[in-house]
Amino acid sequence: MFTGLSTFPLTPIRDDRVDLGAYGGLIDRLVDAGADSIGALGSTGSYAYLDRAERRAVVETTIEHAAGVPVIVGIGALRTSQVLALAADAQAAGADAVMLAPVSYQALTPDDVAGLYEDVTAELSVPLVVYDNPATTHVTFSLELHAHIAHLPHVGALKIPPIAGGADAARERVQALRAVLPEHVRIGISGDGFAAAGLLAGCDAWFTALGGTIPQAMTAIARPALEGRTADALAASDRLAPLWDLVAEHGSLRVAATLAEHLGLVEAPCLPRPLLGLRGGDRERVRDVAEELGLTG
Amino acid sequence: MFTGLSTFPLTPIRDDRVDLGAYGGLIDRLVDAGADSIGALGSTGSYAYLDRAERRAVVETTIEHAAGVPVIVGIGALRTSQVLALAADAQAAGADAVMLAPVSYQALTPDDVAGLYEDVTAELSVPLVVYDNPATTHVTFSLELHAHIAHLPHVGALKIPPIAGGADAARERVQALRAVLPEHVRIGISGDGFAAAGLLAGCDAWFTALGGTIPQAMTAIARPALEGRTADALAASDRLAPLWDLVAEHGSLRVAATLAEHLGLVEAPCLPRPLLGLRGGDRERVRDVAEELGLTG
Repeated sequence: MFTGLSTFPLTPIRDDRVDLGAYGGLIDRLVDAGADSIGALGSTGSYAYLDRAERRAVVETTIEHAAGVPVIVGIGALRTSQVLALAADAQAAGADAVMLAPVSYQALTPDDVAGLYEDVTAELSVPLVVYDNPATTHVTFSLELHAHIAHLPHVGALKIPPIAGGADAARERVQALRAVLPEHVRIGISGDGFAAAGLLAGCDAWFTALGGTIPQAMTAIARPALEGRTADALAASDRLAPLWDLVAEHGSLRVAATLAEHLGLVEAPCLPRPLLGLRGGDRERVRDVAEELGLTG
Repeated sequence: MFTGLSTFPLTPIRDDRVDLGAYGGLIDRLVDAGADSIGALGSTGSYAYLDRAERRAVVETTIEHAAGVPVIVGIGALRTSQVLALAADAQAAGADAVMLAPVSYQALTPDDVAGLYEDVTAELSVPLVVYDNPATTHVTFSLELHAHIAHLPHVGALKIPPIAGGADAARERVQALRAVLPEHVRIGISGDGFAAAGLLAGCDAWFTALGGTIPQAMTAIARPALEGRTADALAASDRLAPLWDLVAEHGSLRVAATLAEHLGLVEAPCLPRPLLGLRGGDRERVRDVAEELGLTG
């Protein structure tokens, strides 16, 4: 389940409610594009902003539309008991796996983080993806902490943040992780602009944020990368350099939201306030890049 | 209302539920110590970890026990509509003021932050404290953003983070803020080890984390500082240097929790998981410092 292209759709918000109709359409689109798995309620799916009932409805809609494609559900929350409740809901709805980031308000110690994963994995019946996203959680995992958590029961994969520094840096990082993780734990790269390098460096999966909205464009990179066709994969990724620049500037969520609005997949604005969509020149530039790169087909 | 010593109690958690009995006792203690105001559901009160019903119960208990001392209620949450609901609850319960930090998961832009305060102040009937806490929100306010927000209706005070660099740095920072804030907006310092310098530099209030648990010790600093007795205030603060060192190492929440447990004010462990209390040698050191400094009386 934790190999290939794992696509993370937006959860469109309209008048402060989840637009389940538009959301179902996003899932259909991922199934049609041949996604290897669907990541509901990732950071791109605004999980942290939604309440329990909203998250339950999103999981149910995902599974209804997934047509058998494996569904991974984000269960992160600030308090352990909230995470446990969300895990139970996801499992009851039929999720194939869950994904957990150590969301923080007070800075978490390594012991806090370890304790969170211990408490949650003790209650699971499906595999868990450890979600390492320092940009949103402000938690930095040491290799030692990764190793401890990856040996807990039910841990099936690790979603790692982008690796800057090119192919050599990516290889080094993946090797360092492999050296401490159990063999059965898969590694998935995130940071779409860094994904080709990550897959070529030996990652098993690509957890894609933009691929939740423009899956075909990401498949065009993932396919050669997963087949080890280095030059083709890097060329396909480099072709989208203007898109990666936009992500570096605005973050993938706001770029994905603008793309989805431009493509007519969701109503604008689709993000939960206080998050504002891109406006003015920033919005126009996303539209221009989408047209230039042929991302609107 | 936004002058003097504003004390922020813990919200003790026992078996994953708010211990309202112990909490009421903490409020009684603050009233007895002559606190100028009580800050319910601050960062020290673990507001970010509690659900709406828990927060409503905490506000009601605070007001029941406050004996007329003004009550400021933290209303921060990730989503604007959640903040609005919490503001309505706090006002309905009789809060004298509310306090709002721009809690983040996705990094917030200055426009997001401004929009949050615009949306919330438009619905308020009580004064609002702008809560600038980069350590937990990861938002950095520019002077321009502070000025914009402070001019919104109902903004009554600004809670600023600790100012490192001593008396001169504190004076400079306070003057820079005064230059852009409307005259009626009060400035409150936080970071207990920096509070004497902050008050002497012209802050109107001290929003104290440890003072929610050991109010007398903080009053001994606040009184001379508010009367402009520089040497006495600094000496009273310097006397607690070992305590400030513990706060620098572990954060004020974990130190306050350990003190409250040691004093028998709350059952241990009192923090919401995944936050773990201090353990082993760290715990012993807090106890030793409390005994040495006479904080247990």
